[in-house]
Amino acid sequence: MCVRRICLIVAYDGTEYHGWQVQNNAVTIEEVLNQCLSDLLQEEIQVSGASRTDAGVHALCNAAIFDTQTRMPADKIAYALNARLPEDIRIQKSMEVAPDWHPRFANSKKTYEYHIYRGEFAMPIGRQYHLFTYRKPDVALMRKAADYFSGEHDFKSFCQSGAQTETTVRTIYGLDIRESGPELVIRVCGNGFLYNMVRIIVGTLLEVGEGKRTPESMKEVIDGKDRSLAGPTAPANGLLLAGYDFENLGKFGRVYEEKND
Amino acid sequence: MCVRRICLIVAYDGTEYHGWQVQNNAVTIEEVLNQCLSDLLQEEIQVSGASRTDAGVHALCNAAIFDTQTRMPADKIAYALNARLPEDIRIQKSMEVAPDWHPRFANSKKTYEYHIYRGEFAMPIGRQYHLFTYRKPDVALMRKAADYFSGEHDFKSFCQSGAQTETTVRTIYGLDIRESGPELVIRVCGNGFLYNMVRIIVGTLLEVGEGKRTPESMKEVIDGKDRSLAGPTAPANGLLLAGYDFENLGKFGRVYEEKND
Repeated sequence: MCVRRICLIVAYDGTEYHGWQVQNNAVTIEEVLNQCLSDLLQEEIQVSGASRTDAGVHALCNAAIFDTQTRMPADKIAYALNARLPEDIRIQKSMEVAPDWHPRFANSKKTYEYHIYRGEFAMPIGRQYHLFTYRKPDVALMRKAADYFSGEHDFKSFCQSGAQTETTVRTIYGLDIRESGPELVIRVCGNGFLYNMVRIIVGTLLEVGEGKRTPESMKEVIDGKDRSLAGPTAPANGLLLAGYDFENLGKFGRVYEEKND
Repeated sequence: MCVRRICLIVAYDGTEYHGWQVQNNAVTIEEVLNQCLSDLLQEEIQVSGASRTDAGVHALCNAAIFDTQTRMPADKIAYALNARLPEDIRIQKSMEVAPDWHPRFANSKKTYEYHIYRGEFAMPIGRQYHLFTYRKPDVALMRKAADYFSGEHDFKSFCQSGAQTETTVRTIYGLDIRESGPELVIRVCGNGFLYNMVRIIVGTLLEVGEGKRTPESMKEVIDGKDRSLAGPTAPANGLLLAGYDFENLGKFGRVYEEKND
């Protein structure tokens, strides 16, 4: 029997799910994929994901691999699987990868977007995908603060306590803030992110925008390596895993390109 | 007792509603507003809307008026009412208007947007707000066809049969198509629209984009004044009542401006 490793690029609306990772008594993306793949391929399938997104977080392009004996052409699995998945999960691509390739251990750049809607009143349209604020954060101040995050830093202050990880050092390649009418999109691209890191960065930047912290204070927060120095964790629903750039495999979703947009 | 007329600007996600207008055995936006307003103001309130949007259609800025004896300041009604409304309906503004002012009889320009997502596979994020197509409509052809709609025409071919209206003549001030990555937005601004008119225009333009009709054939379709000559009615969920420009009252939402964006 020939075993092949397949990589799926998965888009999902996380509203109705308790995150990616399988857990008891709650429906997760991983669990739905396992069930639908096992039904489809008539073998026990266990996917392994690139990013274990939290409850309520969305993705344009999470990646997951699984091993299978199926003879179905790799690129056709996306079509067959989508016919079985609920409408809030859709495979965007399926492809064969090397038997030892894993998205969590491959070199990659990951782009997250955090979406904010500013208004006097909440906006029902897209409420699943943005944080609403009636405050008027000063975007110029937020941009000044954002500049402190680029580069290699120990981001321990931006890691939810209790998380286990070998090192809290990560590299951020870019962090920018784009305005479009009432919408604000905070984009951050890095080689990896700690647990809740993007949401804590966003919560901290919003406090800068509201005048509760100065942009310059970001240096102390980063250098302090203490979660209590940073701001609150912004709500999950504004967060979107937007882009993945895997070395030797390709770019998926909306990858942050400093020059190109 | 002093009776005042209040105008509400209402945003809603139409996914869970059977349209605007009150009907038996189905929940509508109008009905929810009537109930919440009557509860809030402790008098029987009956709103009257500007646009009777269909089931599944969304709005950034529908307008509705009602008469009330309340002494609550007009601008405060939005806050109090929003506290009672479900999260998929939000008042964006409340204001007093002249006792004989009605949004349906006021001179106005109305902007609709129709959102389309093009891809090999459906996109779960925003699926409530766009039509998905795996076809690759030729946007240049669609734009050529769109040019035929501007100006004053008898749009009988683009009116759902059975609709009753004094005249099927309407003026379209502008119709354009904007591309942004996989997204396509068809915007149309006019002095009024017939029943299902925007959705039939979109269905017809998509057939042009797919090569089933020529751009030039639009002239015959319009001149023929026969619904059977036009294309299918595009699905409701892609349609958004995006902007209203009321003479002597103001602009709300995203109003189509030919030069300005």
